[in-house]
Amino acid sequence: MPDLRKDPIVGRWVIIATSRAKRPHDFDTTPQRQKGRFCPFCEGNEDKTPNEIIAYRRPGSVPNRPGWRVRVVPNKYPALEIEGDLNKRGEGIYDMMRGVGAHEVIIECPQHLISTSELSEEQLREVLWVYRDRLVDLKRDRRLVYGMVFKNVGAAAGASLEHTHSQLIVTPIVPINVWEEMTGSLEFYNYRGRCIYCDMIQQELATEKRVVLDTPLFLAFCPFASRFPFETWVLPKSHSSHFENIQKNGVDDLSGVLRQVIAKIEAALGQPAYNYIIHTAPFDTQELSHYHWHIEIMPSLTKAAGFEWGTGFYINPVPPEDAAAFLREVELEAQEPQSISLRQTG
Amino acid sequence: MPDLRKDPIVGRWVIIATSRAKRPHDFDTTPQRQKGRFCPFCEGNEDKTPNEIIAYRRPGSVPNRPGWRVRVVPNKYPALEIEGDLNKRGEGIYDMMRGVGAHEVIIECPQHLISTSELSEEQLREVLWVYRDRLVDLKRDRRLVYGMVFKNVGAAAGASLEHTHSQLIVTPIVPINVWEEMTGSLEFYNYRGRCIYCDMIQQELATEKRVVLDTPLFLAFCPFASRFPFETWVLPKSHSSHFENIQKNGVDDLSGVLRQVIAKIEAALGQPAYNYIIHTAPFDTQELSHYHWHIEIMPSLTKAAGFEWGTGFYINPVPPEDAAAFLREVELEAQEPQSISLRQTG
Repeated sequence: MPDLRKDPIVGRWVIIATSRAKRPHDFDTTPQRQKGRFCPFCEGNEDKTPNEIIAYRRPGSVPNRPGWRVRVVPNKYPALEIEGDLNKRGEGIYDMMRGVGAHEVIIECPQHLISTSELSEEQLREVLWVYRDRLVDLKRDRRLVYGMVFKNVGAAAGASLEHTHSQLIVTPIVPINVWEEMTGSLEFYNYRGRCIYCDMIQQELATEKRVVLDTPLFLAFCPFASRFPFETWVLPKSHSSHFENIQKNGVDDLSGVLRQVIAKIEAALGQPAYNYIIHTAPFDTQELSHYHWHIEIMPSLTKAAGFEWGTGFYINPVPPEDAAAFLREVELEAQEPQSISLRQTG
Repeated sequence: MPDLRKDPIVGRWVIIATSRAKRPHDFDTTPQRQKGRFCPFCEGNEDKTPNEIIAYRRPGSVPNRPGWRVRVVPNKYPALEIEGDLNKRGEGIYDMMRGVGAHEVIIECPQHLISTSELSEEQLREVLWVYRDRLVDLKRDRRLVYGMVFKNVGAAAGASLEHTHSQLIVTPIVPINVWEEMTGSLEFYNYRGRCIYCDMIQQELATEKRVVLDTPLFLAFCPFASRFPFETWVLPKSHSSHFENIQKNGVDDLSGVLRQVIAKIEAALGQPAYNYIIHTAPFDTQELSHYHWHIEIMPSLTKAAGFEWGTGFYINPVPPEDAAAFLREVELEAQEPQSISLRQTG
């Protein structure tokens, strides 16, 4: 008999339908590596992207030339544009504003690597730092209220370029899913006086069955109402609403957690396409007692159907308890801190 | 400069980013017709599906044998199961219940046709009638509160079988997207005393620029805050909250509208995969003044990315005004009522 489970934060129901279950290896993951194609993100091809906004580079090296480790450039086909005013206006019952905002690309390494799991921990740390630096810089712009960091890996997850990169979209409004998380968690806070995410961490640690990885500062687990098979969330164990307020110890720990969780998902499922997204509080708020930043990692295993878009209802054939048990048991190759490489790409 | 547009009903914002626009024929639509494969939905193969729940058949023909025109069977891999009680329960902060409900398949014709546009108007009318008959029957079950009719055409839209069919999922809870529509439209009603969908129809008819098709009883238009390129909604012009209360005149008109709109989308875009979904009021309500049933048609042109799932934010490269103008201008082949065939399948 399938289960119906409610996401306690936003109230979204998910059908956990084991009758539709497939074994992990039954999923069609078909990683498509485009060996040999020209890559505008590789070191040496800096002139094929717009001019860099910021880069972490070797002392003495020149902007838009080799010598960088992480590099941020404007998206060549931006969904939002940084110039101009919002010009908020109505048209009968409709509301609109100009698409003012930022759309940046974070090129995560100079080599042609493909997944977060292939970065060294030191590289991933710099990626996390540059996320933070860009958020801190952009939140000074009073027209903008939200910064969304996300990453698509693999064509099935919406990536158009293979070279490992993230994107940052900064908007003049709060995305509705974050808004719903904030509303839901505020309601819980008003009723119980506690952060619902903190409660979730406590409960997951107590029951253990959905835990994937537990480190001093972070917890990775498959959420109770997982929308997608092997969906995994990473939360800081200490309450914090804004990702950009992360401490150095946090970055050091998180880089290991994120890398290991993704490596486990890839080892378990045969390197599927995936997305991750950082949910954090809006720019224009101080530290919030009810909201808790986190990273949602979503492997692209199930075919997207309009049904999900049309209903907000998800059918997930893999119970999160099974997914977590599977991921816990995945053994990664012996790790040499800061230089692990699970696979080599040419 | 891109536009940010707000869906007036649920408050979801959409980025209309013409800078990312592609011409309609640039989309990768790749229709994949599986000629020659065995089809369990074709007439003569009735023993390859679970026993039928209802069928419209030739007088004297026998259930689960040839002679039917439209046939409804339980889904072989159901997301929900009809037997048992809900057993609502908690687990710490989490809520769950058993996955009680119905998951049925509506086989829309005995021949191996693929899209709604290939059905005759008479066939499509019977499909609409059987949607209604199933909803009316299932709403007598007091454990169930919502019936969702949807249709996936093409692998990219989540269809696993080619033979044209719809699905009905009946759930013990209201899907969150419908809930948000109901909440949003109730708020509007409380403030203005009018149905927001009725207002939308008036405004669309007045400005005309997003109208695709206007008939005596129905209006088809590309919504102001379209999430997807060429997304099209079909609304009854007279206020009505429950699809299953549709009048015979309505069915007669709607079958033509739905068929033509889908044929136009297919002619314009080269037979893309698509979904449609009927949003109607929950079972356990009387006629509602603030809610208005409608059909949402969503071509699968853009690659699904976790970004959309993670944010509820959509980036649409085609302004709905352009899409509607394009669809208005599409000429369909001369129609012989009740026997039109836009393309022949073997």
